[in-house]
Order: sequence, then C-alpha cells, then structure tokens
Amino acid sequence: MAPDQISFARGAPSADIIPAEALRVSAAQVLADDPAGALSYGPGSGYGPLRDWIAKRHDVDPERVLVTNGSLEGGMMLFDLLVEPGDTVVVEAPSYDRTLLGLRQRGAELLAVPLEDDGIDTGALEAALENGARPKFIHTIPNFHNPAGCTLSRAKRDRLLELAAEYDFTIFEDDPYKQVRFEGEDLPTMLELDTGGRVTYASSFSKTIAPGVRTGYLIGPPDTIAALTRAAVNTYISPNTLAESIVSEFCRSGALERALADVTVALRARRDAVAQALREHFGDDARFVTPEGGYFLWVELPEGTNTAELLVACKQRGVTFVKGSDFMIEGGDNCLRLAFSAVTPEQATKGVGLIFEALVTKATA
Amino acid sequence: MAPDQISFARGAPSADIIPAEALRVSAAQVLADDPAGALSYGPGSGYGPLRDWIAKRHDVDPERVLVTNGSLEGGMMLFDLLVEPGDTVVVEAPSYDRTLLGLRQRGAELLAVPLEDDGIDTGALEAALENGARPKFIHTIPNFHNPAGCTLSRAKRDRLLELAAEYDFTIFEDDPYKQVRFEGEDLPTMLELDTGGRVTYASSFSKTIAPGVRTGYLIGPPDTIAALTRAAVNTYISPNTLAESIVSEFCRSGALERALADVTVALRARRDAVAQALREHFGDDARFVTPEGGYFLWVELPEGTNTAELLVACKQRGVTFVKGSDFMIEGGDNCLRLAFSAVTPEQATKGVGLIFEALVTKATA
Repeated sequence: MAPDQISFARGAPSADIIPAEALRVSAAQVLADDPAGALSYGPGSGYGPLRDWIAKRHDVDPERVLVTNGSLEGGMMLFDLLVEPGDTVVVEAPSYDRTLLGLRQRGAELLAVPLEDDGIDTGALEAALENGARPKFIHTIPNFHNPAGCTLSRAKRDRLLELAAEYDFTIFEDDPYKQVRFEGEDLPTMLELDTGGRVTYASSFSKTIAPGVRTGYLIGPPDTIAALTRAAVNTYISPNTLAESIVSEFCRSGALERALADVTVALRARRDAVAQALREHFGDDARFVTPEGGYFLWVELPEGTNTAELLVACKQRGVTFVKGSDFMIEGGDNCLRLAFSAVTPEQATKGVGLIFEALVTKATA
Repeated sequence: MAPDQISFARGAPSADIIPAEALRVSAAQVLADDPAGALSYGPGSGYGPLRDWIAKRHDVDPERVLVTNGSLEGGMMLFDLLVEPGDTVVVEAPSYDRTLLGLRQRGAELLAVPLEDDGIDTGALEAALENGARPKFIHTIPNFHNPAGCTLSRAKRDRLLELAAEYDFTIFEDDPYKQVRFEGEDLPTMLELDTGGRVTYASSFSKTIAPGVRTGYLIGPPDTIAALTRAAVNTYISPNTLAESIVSEFCRSGALERALADVTVALRARRDAVAQALREHFGDDARFVTPEGGYFLWVELPEGTNTAELLVACKQRGVTFVKGSDFMIEGGDNCLRLAFSAVTPEQATKGVGLIFEALVTKATA
C-alpha cells in the first residue's frame, strides 16, 4: 500500500486508537505479580485468571470457557470438531470470507441464507428447513455484521433459538464486535437466551484491546469445551500465556472500560464521516444499513455496477476497499465493504469522494 | 500435585530459572519502540524483526522462516501439509508422545526405528528402506532427545541426509534443545548440512526463554514455508504478535545469551544430581545415556521391571516421572523418563532415592 493510500480494506483499528501505553503498564504489572503464571506452560483452556474473568463477564461457569489464540482459530477448532464432509452448514450471505473458506476446506455444504436489515432472513431459513435442509449448525454474526454492518433483532434471536430446538442444530454465535456499540440498545446474546445448550459463542479482544494480543475465546456446553480443550493441548499445549496474562491484567485493572470508551468515540466519528460522505456523493445510489457499532459498512450500488472493476480504478486514485463478491458464494458484484476502523474522519470523507469520482469517470468514459 | 511432590514428570523449567525481570524490560522497551508493530495484526509468517533475527541466526533467507505459536503447532501444520492417510512416517523409538499422537490422528503409518546411544539406528532404517519402506518423511530429535537424552552423531547426520536423497524423503529435524548444551562439541544441524532442500527444521524459545512465550519456528524450503504460511493465515491470521515482539527484543538486546548462560549452569547441576544419585542407588541396574544438554534422562531398568506399577508406588512416596511406554508404540515397560528441568539438585537427589526405595520395597514385598 502506498503511504498516502486511504484503506477501507482492512478490518483493523489504526495504531492511534490502540491503547499501547496502558498495555505497557499491564505487562509490567503482571510480570511482577505473577511471573510464574505468565511465563510457564498454562492449561490448554488458557491463563486461569483470564478464563475466570471471561466466565464472570458472561455469567457462566469457567469450565464452559476456552481461551484461544484469537477467535478465528477457536472457530476453526470448532469446525474440526463438528464438520464431517458433506454436512450442511448455514451461513449468512454475505459473510466473513475466512469463515466460508474454513468451512469449505472441511468439506461442508454451505447453505447461504440472505441477510436483511435486521439480520438473517429467518423466514428463508425456515422455508429451507421445511424443505428438508438439516444443518449441523448455523454460523451467525449477530452484532454489527462483518461485512454487512447489520444487527440481528431481538425477535430473530428468539426465532433462531426456536428453530435450533425444533430442528436440532447448533448456533455458532460469532460475536467479536458486541462491545463496540456506538448507540442504540445492547441486545442479549443468544448464549444468554439459550436454555437448551444449543449455542457456542465466540468473541475476541482484537476489537476491544488490540489485534496483536491474538486472544479470543469460545463459550459452549461443557462437553464441547472439554473436547476442544483436548484438541488445543494436542495442537499447541497451551495458548499464549504471556499475552493472555497481559490481557487479564488489562481487563481487571479497568483499562478495558477506558479503552472501550475511547474506541467507540473514535469509531463513531469515522462511521459518521463515511455515512455522510456516501449520502452526499451517492444519494439514493448507495444503499446501506447504518451500523450501530463495529467496523464495517456494506454498500449496495445500482444493479449492473461492477465493484471489481471499480476497485481497480479506485486503487489508481489512492483508495481501496474489498469487493462484495469476496463475501458471497455467488453474487455481490455490485456491492462493496467499507471498513471505517482504520481511517480518520478526514480520510473517510476524502476516500468516499475518490470512490465516487472513480465510479462517475468510469460510467462516462 | 501435592505442593511438596518432587516432579520428574514435566519437561518444563522451574519458575526460578525463567528470566522474568529481563522479559519485563523487553516488554516495556518494545511497546515503547514499536507499539504499532507489536499490537496490530502481523503477517502470517510472524513478527518481521523476529523472523529476520531467526533467519540471520540460522544463516538462511527470511522467506524460509515461519514463526509459529510454539514449535508443536508448527509441526502439526507440517503434518497437515505432508501426511495423507496411509503414508509411512519414520519415528524414533522412543519418541515425544505428542508427535506420535499427532501423526496417528492424521492417519500416518508409523515405522518406529530404535534409538542407540548416538541416535537413531541408521542401519535398521537402511534395512527397512531396502525392504521396501517408502516413508514420506522421518521425524528426528537430534540433540538431547526427548525422552531418550541421546544426541545424533555427526556421522549419522550425514548418513540420514544420504538416505533421504537416495530414497527421496524429507527429514523433519525437531530441535528445541540444541542451545541448551552443557558440554561437548556443538554439532551442525542437518539443515546446515543439507544441499538438496530435504530438511524442514523446527525450534522454539520455550527452552531458551520461557514456555509461556509460546513462540517457535520452522525453517524449510521456500515453497513449503509459503504453503504453511497460507494455512497459518487461514487458521489464525497471524501468530502472537505481542509475544513475538517481546521475544524479538529479548533476543536483540543480548538478554537471550545471558539467559542461556544461566539456564545451562542451572540445568547441568540438576542433571549431575540425578545422574549421580542414579549411579549411587541403582549401580548397573539403571542404564542411561548421560545427556550433554536439554531436560531429559531416559532410564532402562532391568528386564521385567514394570515402571507403570513403580509409578503408582512412587506417587505414594511423593515423587513422579513418566513411564517409558508412553513414548513407545510398543515396549518400554521397564523404562522411565526423568525430566531434571524442574527440580533443584537437592530435590533430584532426594527424588531418585525415593524411586529406589519404592522399587526395592516392591521387589521384596
């Protein structure tokens, strides 16, 4: 990337909103207070004090928590446990590209159910189930979806749990953005609402602290977590004890709440700049759900627009995004994902202008 | 484990020889100097400055290095790449239990070749090859073997490379202990001696810094490393950037050499205490190779001794080890592994005495 390139491509915070100094304090503290715990082999389930903190935060027993080297690897371990080649797995359309790839590599048959403004189309899912689809599980990103920006409504959360009970499937609730909420009402997780042990929940500290800590977690039924812990031990003995001890200290010291307050203010300003610039330049030609949190905004341009070609033209102008088809099994050619997490409001405004310029120049060329 | 239990079971350093204070300094330094690098998503191949440092240390191009979340996971990723169900893989007898398990779980047919005092029996390997065995690769732990304590001679290193060329197999040189040498001549790695791109090498900072940093690495042919890097990105995006940045600073600042000097002095004293106590109590009844480094000493007791039963009796007396059969596909019933890494010399002397007491009491019971 050229140094002055404006990137809407990567779902990562810019360095200026990462709490480096507070992490430095946490590292010094925990290496003084618990050097043996921070630096020895830990349990396969993760650094004990962090596991306990997560359990308390989610009001579950610690034996239901597995701390992992990022939530992506936690998800892949769950796929290794659950997916046999030929199994049907429901995914959202669009969805996170690495999830789609990981499921495909394990031989899953993907059943893509469209997203609406309030999350997955539960009517379409129900129709597929009535027509005989028997998914092993459903993968859903409930809050501030990557890439779609939408949030699953409370009513649909309840409906998914009912369908899971009726058709006996697991809900994999992939929820890294929940705490990065700018406005609106925080909704209960399906993990909290569940009474049948049908939910395995994933989250991460990548979006609330920093991606480099590579610390995520799964919460699920005790037997699922026990099986995953055995797999973890056989793969890497224990996850990163040093990083997890620093994260633990960061959470327990109150630095997490301060970091969250800072990051939501910064990201809201970035979202506002992108949304406003889209409305100003594109008007009704850019359809999007305004995300109430998170990192991403999904833009649908008029039918016939080719965002793959648009991306080439945009790169020449110094701005990048990810084209919509990367997040779809089919379609998405007129869509694009704008990550507003790594751009300043000024860059956001300028960048959207450049995209518009590229589109107009192209259309009139 | 009871608090006053003497453990020869775990291959890990005791907390008193882990350089916690120096790591605290390294963490503070790197989070001040390179907060963005330490805390962002990094490349799948690992934190750049650490990858470069490893490459220089081994005199290879950085594109041949993949930094991983510990060398065990690096090995498992290599197995995922190389092993198809039914493939023959040569392992040493005895060998590291997690390696045997990981290969079996991937459907490998294990061909176990015995260890001699100077490493794998290359004559037996050659005979198996002449009889038609066609291994995909051979797994070998060349220095201060876990569990056997032996070191592969220079002549056998050359011979393995010749056989690899003749029969077209890869050598997986699994070498976490090399730098923990107490005495004797450091031997060249097969990675260094290789001219045909037939070696993939693994090592780790668990034994030279601390297990909790969970940082290891693979060095191999560029195409192997490129394929493994793609798999790494799809599994965990990047390895632990925060921990790797601290390890990098630790290595570059000179703290690594100081830690190595301290750890070898401490571990040599522990080995000496175990070896001397074995000779005093058991005399000729305990056969072992005195390891020139590392963590482990492998003891063969007289034929007919059952170390599984002995372990039960020992635990009642307050001392533990790992029974030999855990490291063998078959046999090893009269053997045991003593890890001297986590016991003080005083504990070592006392612990061996307790094992002897348990054996004698049992024999005369």
